[in-house]
Amino acid sequence: MPKETKKNDVSYSVIRRLPRYYRFIGELLKQGTVRISSGKLAEKMSLTASQIRQDLNCFGGFGQQGYGYNLTELQNEIGNILGVHEVKKAVLIGVGNLGRAIAAHMDFAEYGCKLAGLFDSDKDKIGETAAELKILDISELENFCRRESPQIAILCIPKSSAQQIADRLVKLGVKAFWNFSHYDIKISHKDVVVENVHLGDSLLMLSYGLNHSSEE
Amino acid sequence: MPKETKKNDVSYSVIRRLPRYYRFIGELLKQGTVRISSGKLAEKMSLTASQIRQDLNCFGGFGQQGYGYNLTELQNEIGNILGVHEVKKAVLIGVGNLGRAIAAHMDFAEYGCKLAGLFDSDKDKIGETAAELKILDISELENFCRRESPQIAILCIPKSSAQQIADRLVKLGVKAFWNFSHYDIKISHKDVVVENVHLGDSLLMLSYGLNHSSEE
Repeated sequence: MPKETKKNDVSYSVIRRLPRYYRFIGELLKQGTVRISSGKLAEKMSLTASQIRQDLNCFGGFGQQGYGYNLTELQNEIGNILGVHEVKKAVLIGVGNLGRAIAAHMDFAEYGCKLAGLFDSDKDKIGETAAELKILDISELENFCRRESPQIAILCIPKSSAQQIADRLVKLGVKAFWNFSHYDIKISHKDVVVENVHLGDSLLMLSYGLNHSSEE
Repeated sequence: MPKETKKNDVSYSVIRRLPRYYRFIGELLKQGTVRISSGKLAEKMSLTASQIRQDLNCFGGFGQQGYGYNLTELQNEIGNILGVHEVKKAVLIGVGNLGRAIAAHMDFAEYGCKLAGLFDSDKDKIGETAAELKILDISELENFCRRESPQIAILCIPKSSAQQIADRLVKLGVKAFWNFSHYDIKISHKDVVVENVHLGDSLLMLSYGLNHSSEE
């Protein structure tokens, strides 16, 4: 299967761009668009048509000269690569402001995830409901994970408690961390998949941009 | 001033790494570290010593052979470049789950920002308090901005209302957007600074990593 071979050759920088393609294609489909030329897609995404052709050629022949891309096929293929078609269970640890917002705000199903459990150590929060789930005592984590086998953990806890929790989760079979905790999980767990979110870094880049905007 | 000249030559890819340096240096200072060698810093940041030396050399002579980096000086210099020493006022629009979390969770002062106003159009939210600020009616946006002159807007509103709000804010002198709304502000406002946060893209990269982790 030549397509498969091609897929494995895709560079990480192309992969990093896939979520953005996936997002734009999803929006176009919602608006009822069925096909789009690389030129039109480039315009919408502020890229060049040749960059788009290069990127999307990595995944096989979805573009047809003069016909453009079939968006349903393209979404399906990119979705396959991103793994959104296999539902993965996730637990969220730390239901403070941020954890509660992540639980309520994200449409997990859209990303191939199912939020299966919320945990906190704060007695005042335990038993409350967020995102239609009852917040469980962190002491129940072991039993829950043995029963539900979540693959993903979303850490919305302070850095100080993150190491201990990450150690417990890895022991329980969690393979991937969506990490808002600022603790570097990779230090003790080289083999897990980690996606760090540092909102502060993003705000600093905004500050930098503002600080230097008059220079341009 | 040779340092100034150097600063302007710094490539964007180095700039993109600065928030992370700034964060690690801040943590080391909190722990009481005064100086650190490029080797030790590299270890903590999972970089190579030579990459660190190359990056930080862009900003002048903070490293001394055999003495390491003076962390206070380095933090100060990187902070200057990132603009954290001039306090900029920000307004946050949309105090739903995410907006409330951003308002409450972020230590804005640490990033040279001051959250000055929260706005929503939902009558049930207006008058409530979040992050020690009273939520104001979006109809008061014009008066507020004329009085307070915020430079930054944090958009936590749905894509559908983002364009109209962004247009109003740009007219009111807002120069920078921390954009959680998925609307592409740059389309109609080329000159403003925009930092987009797409939490879904990050979750998709996690899904990708999990989907391909067995291949490595």
